[in-house]
Amino acid sequence: MSDKISTAVIRRLPRYYRYLGELLEHNVVRISSKELSEKMDVTASQIRQDLNNFGGFGMQGYGYNVEYLYNEIARILGIDKNNKLIVVGAGNLGTALANYDDFRRRGFIITAMFDIDPKVIGTKINGIRVHDMKELEEYVTTNRVDMAALTVPKSAAPAVAKDLAKWGVHAIWNFAPTDLELPKDVVSENVHLAESIMRLSYKYKALNDKKKK
Amino acid sequence: MSDKISTAVIRRLPRYYRYLGELLEHNVVRISSKELSEKMDVTASQIRQDLNNFGGFGMQGYGYNVEYLYNEIARILGIDKNNKLIVVGAGNLGTALANYDDFRRRGFIITAMFDIDPKVIGTKINGIRVHDMKELEEYVTTNRVDMAALTVPKSAAPAVAKDLAKWGVHAIWNFAPTDLELPKDVVSENVHLAESIMRLSYKYKALNDKKKK
Repeated sequence: MSDKISTAVIRRLPRYYRYLGELLEHNVVRISSKELSEKMDVTASQIRQDLNNFGGFGMQGYGYNVEYLYNEIARILGIDKNNKLIVVGAGNLGTALANYDDFRRRGFIITAMFDIDPKVIGTKINGIRVHDMKELEEYVTTNRVDMAALTVPKSAAPAVAKDLAKWGVHAIWNFAPTDLELPKDVVSENVHLAESIMRLSYKYKALNDKKKK
Repeated sequence: MSDKISTAVIRRLPRYYRYLGELLEHNVVRISSKELSEKMDVTASQIRQDLNNFGGFGMQGYGYNVEYLYNEIARILGIDKNNKLIVVGAGNLGTALANYDDFRRRGFIITAMFDIDPKVIGTKINGIRVHDMKELEEYVTTNRVDMAALTVPKSAAPAVAKDLAKWGVHAIWNFAPTDLELPKDVVSENVHLAESIMRLSYKYKALNDKKKK
């Protein structure tokens, strides 16, 4: 595997995975890059190029074996084995994550949640215990924690992220509307909802501008 | 403004907007593209190129006036005026959106929520009334609705989106883990949480693979 895969490829891989999963559910055994490209609204050559980064997987004149490709992409994405996840912040967003059973199906197992609110500490959300934030250090240093979802307020996020990194959490899924400064050996992925709705607004405005012409 | 702005530029604009907002909060009056680029981890020439799509805004030897650029980007993004938003699905995710006051500050006003659950119908979330889904058609055909956030289960999403489009909603913010098939005059933006966590997993795996070497 080449060392430097572009972010655009990484962005598309989970989509390929989702589509292939849907094909599997419909018992589709094989698919050509052309058919896959029509379903996904990406060119066939783009798909071939993307997958060539990881060694190809296609066979001339046959296309792709759906199940094989699905499993290979799972391996590339690191979801062929379980990832243990904690959720820091048990507000609505944290609760939504805890209730989202799709994650568990993909091997993301939420093992614990943390909050500062006495009203939620000690309760269980979808079977997952909410701990006091004071227990965070002990928990992450004594349990395997692959990833932490950060759903605390923006003002708290930088300090919590810094602590998590210090205590040995190497992957942070950040929902706070701020970019975290993290050590080089900590990876992160941002879900910036405000930015997402602004992109929608941009498209909506462009649509309306076109209508006026 | 050129007709075809790349999705990569549209992806970066809200980030520029967020950074400029933070600079404004710190009373920064002007900034060079070099300084902005260091803060944002994008090259200075990238920033100049991006902004040139909309006419530039920078002055040789001066850089950018922060407030002016902030307001211009707001105008480009269509957030210089209010957008009226409904939230369809009043579960944890819908509730999180309703409670996220940052949206209101940016001019995204949630006017109504909809759900099928009798337990939440008639209640208010952060002051926003939850209506019966049966009232959705009447509401969107008699009130101004710029956008609809879709936080219903995956199985319900395609039909609800189709209805919304039929009833005149032209922008859909989709949280369901599926790509919607929409008419050409309807724009959408997806927030696919499962894909986001898979990208994190990919980065985490790459990090661990590097350590093993």
